[in-house]
Amino acid sequence: RIDPARLWSSLMAMAEVGATPKGGVKRLTLTEVDREGRQRFAGWCEAAGLTLRVDSMGNMFARRPGRDPSRPPVLFGSHLDSQPTGGKFDGALGVIAGLEVMRTLQDLNIETEAPLELVNWTDEEGSRFGHSLMGSGVWAGVYGQDATYALRDGEGVSVIEALEGIGYRGEEPAAPFPADSYFELHIEQGPILEREGMRIGIVTGGQAQVWYDAVVTGQDSHAGTTPPSTRRDALLGAARVVSLVDRLMRARGEDGRGTVGRLQVLPNSCNVIPGEVRFSVEFRHPSGEEIEALAAEFPREARTIADELGLRLELRELFRIPAQPFDPACVALVRDAAARLGLPAREIISGAGHDAIYVARRVPAAMIFTPCKDGLSHNEAESILPEEAADGCQVLFEAVLARANR
Amino acid sequence: RIDPARLWSSLMAMAEVGATPKGGVKRLTLTEVDREGRQRFAGWCEAAGLTLRVDSMGNMFARRPGRDPSRPPVLFGSHLDSQPTGGKFDGALGVIAGLEVMRTLQDLNIETEAPLELVNWTDEEGSRFGHSLMGSGVWAGVYGQDATYALRDGEGVSVIEALEGIGYRGEEPAAPFPADSYFELHIEQGPILEREGMRIGIVTGGQAQVWYDAVVTGQDSHAGTTPPSTRRDALLGAARVVSLVDRLMRARGEDGRGTVGRLQVLPNSCNVIPGEVRFSVEFRHPSGEEIEALAAEFPREARTIADELGLRLELRELFRIPAQPFDPACVALVRDAAARLGLPAREIISGAGHDAIYVARRVPAAMIFTPCKDGLSHNEAESILPEEAADGCQVLFEAVLARANR
Ligand SMILES: NC(=O)NCCC(=O)O
Ligand SMILES: NC(=O)NCCC(=O)O
Repeated sequence: RIDPARLWSSLMAMAEVGATPKGGVKRLTLTEVDREGRQRFAGWCEAAGLTLRVDSMGNMFARRPGRDPSRPPVLFGSHLDSQPTGGKFDGALGVIAGLEVMRTLQDLNIETEAPLELVNWTDEEGSRFGHSLMGSGVWAGVYGQDATYALRDGEGVSVIEALEGIGYRGEEPAAPFPADSYFELHIEQGPILEREGMRIGIVTGGQAQVWYDAVVTGQDSHAGTTPPSTRRDALLGAARVVSLVDRLMRARGEDGRGTVGRLQVLPNSCNVIPGEVRFSVEFRHPSGEEIEALAAEFPREARTIADELGLRLELRELFRIPAQPFDPACVALVRDAAARLGLPAREIISGAGHDAIYVARRVPAAMIFTPCKDGLSHNEAESILPEEAADGCQVLFEAVLARANR
Repeated sequence: RIDPARLWSSLMAMAEVGATPKGGVKRLTLTEVDREGRQRFAGWCEAAGLTLRVDSMGNMFARRPGRDPSRPPVLFGSHLDSQPTGGKFDGALGVIAGLEVMRTLQDLNIETEAPLELVNWTDEEGSRFGHSLMGSGVWAGVYGQDATYALRDGEGVSVIEALEGIGYRGEEPAAPFPADSYFELHIEQGPILEREGMRIGIVTGGQAQVWYDAVVTGQDSHAGTTPPSTRRDALLGAARVVSLVDRLMRARGEDGRGTVGRLQVLPNSCNVIPGEVRFSVEFRHPSGEEIEALAAEFPREARTIADELGLRLELRELFRIPAQPFDPACVALVRDAAARLGLPAREIISGAGHDAIYVARRVPAAMIFTPCKDGLSHNEAESILPEEAADGCQVLFEAVLARANR
């Protein structure tokens, strides 16, 4: 069995990197703090006898050989980057639990049939460059590497500059290599498991999503002198679109998700009518048809708002992900492990995006969820219990072992 | 008569300081660029034989002696700071035209009865520290100096740090000294004069205003996992308040003004439901009663919005300015000068705030407006014609001379 105390203390040691005063972490992708987290992780991998490779997107693969070198490896892992005001467990749990799996195998001197590889994907969160699942997306061929390299953050720094800046642009191309399967442990980030007293979520797939970048353009002018009839207030337009997103979400009941999370006003001066507002829009739903319907309805209604106010609206669809079912055989291994361990478990669809969703396009994949306090994530107060981490890690251990030795 | 070519070339020389690619200026108050503009101005004052004093708010007074040293000076001027994406003439016209008045008197060897003082007020725009009319407000005793020193910009720099940083915290206390009168030339920043083919606006007063700082607090959480029923989206609340401000403005017809110009979202990440939004709100109206009504109605309705969405709203009233009539005798001097020069002129109420509005609480004051293209200001495309600048400057010259020699 895995060592719950070692798992927890490594989780806490990783949480020191980018720790925030409110008890969360700020470990934005490809920053100096991310580099520090990666170095700490790399050191632990080396001590556990693993061999590290870094690919051209900065994805890290730490390999443990198997008895049969001709077999493709079983992959598992998650991400070490965080939101600007993120929690200690979102992503880190899956990576550090994967490390604990490797350490346990080393302690017990277990040799698996297939090789194992522990992965830390680059930029899962998407909050710095606007694309979530970036490293796994390029790896799986969903995003082109050149276009991804050219994305820029709010300060104008490109992905490739940031990668090279922290010394994590590796040699190996970021592209799918032959792999047996992929397992990812993650906190649920939602309220369902906790509410129902479940210890394990057997994740059957990810929901459909569509993301946009929006720019509303009006005209900067003086707040005190410009009469109502001649105003072209870009913020008023953006505000109505924010309300529209909420309305379209609620029209789909409790399964709907619609969010404007990022919004920037220009010139952002109290006595200037805003001439330009740039913001993000995203919708999610377990049903791909609902997302298709939203992708038709939202741009049309948003344009109507802009037209009514004499504003210009540029709407760029960043990506559209269909609902992604996981591999039934891999899901069954998770279900079996939870049952064997006597842990109350239920099937669940992931509300959040995860690297597993892109990896699943190339490799049979599954995920394991553990509860988190009040379903709260993307928040510094994100919190889980040591025994919840240990249960999730044990399920991961058993599923990976079963798959590698089949 | 004043020298139109010299006036224009000095205006263009000042516009080089902080020039932006789109033809405007960014000369934010108390920055390095502001210091550069002040130094250029100080050099010109010295060359024109003026004696410069700087007060504890960085307000600059350039004095030309009169025949009778016992008489209080006639003041005139405006401000050299700009909006982040401001125009070349907002403020600079009044200061540089004042300099042209001084230079013309020097050229013609005219000695006035009363001394004259040309003023450059600190931070008229208010866009950096959130308080417009800051230097004149402290001078006139509307704002306390200590509280004003403690205001901070978006980067956390305080007013006093910024003042000392550019070496413009002067010896003399910022407080009203005996002065005969104050005249300020400014572009209208609105569409009225241009629409009616007027060359001069005889400003009879400033409109009433009320400004707020607002903070809406909800809860950061994951955009993909948080169901509609448990969301507390601070941006949704702010968006509804933006719509409310617009509705309250329009309910007052063409004379109403209501603007949210500045808005900041936290944590501002595309896949995080915003937990906090901070923004500015301001209303203006020629009638003080309408502003009193808005100051009762707006906070009440904004609170209802927040309550409905389960959000917390903090609303801090920054200031409330009653409608401020100018001094009839000073206004008459402006009217007479325009008439004598044969310039089409009309009475007008200022839509913008101006230093003259605070100075008028202590000293008889008046203002002169000139048209600006398309009524556009607080915009880099702000534009006026050389002859419009010259006409305004000539009216200023005559009004000041008449007052100083009466
Ligand atoms: N797991 C997680 O928080 N992913 C971020 C990507 C998203 O779901 O928006
Ligand atoms: N004149 C001018 O633009 N003043 C800025 C203060 C304001 O009216 O908001």
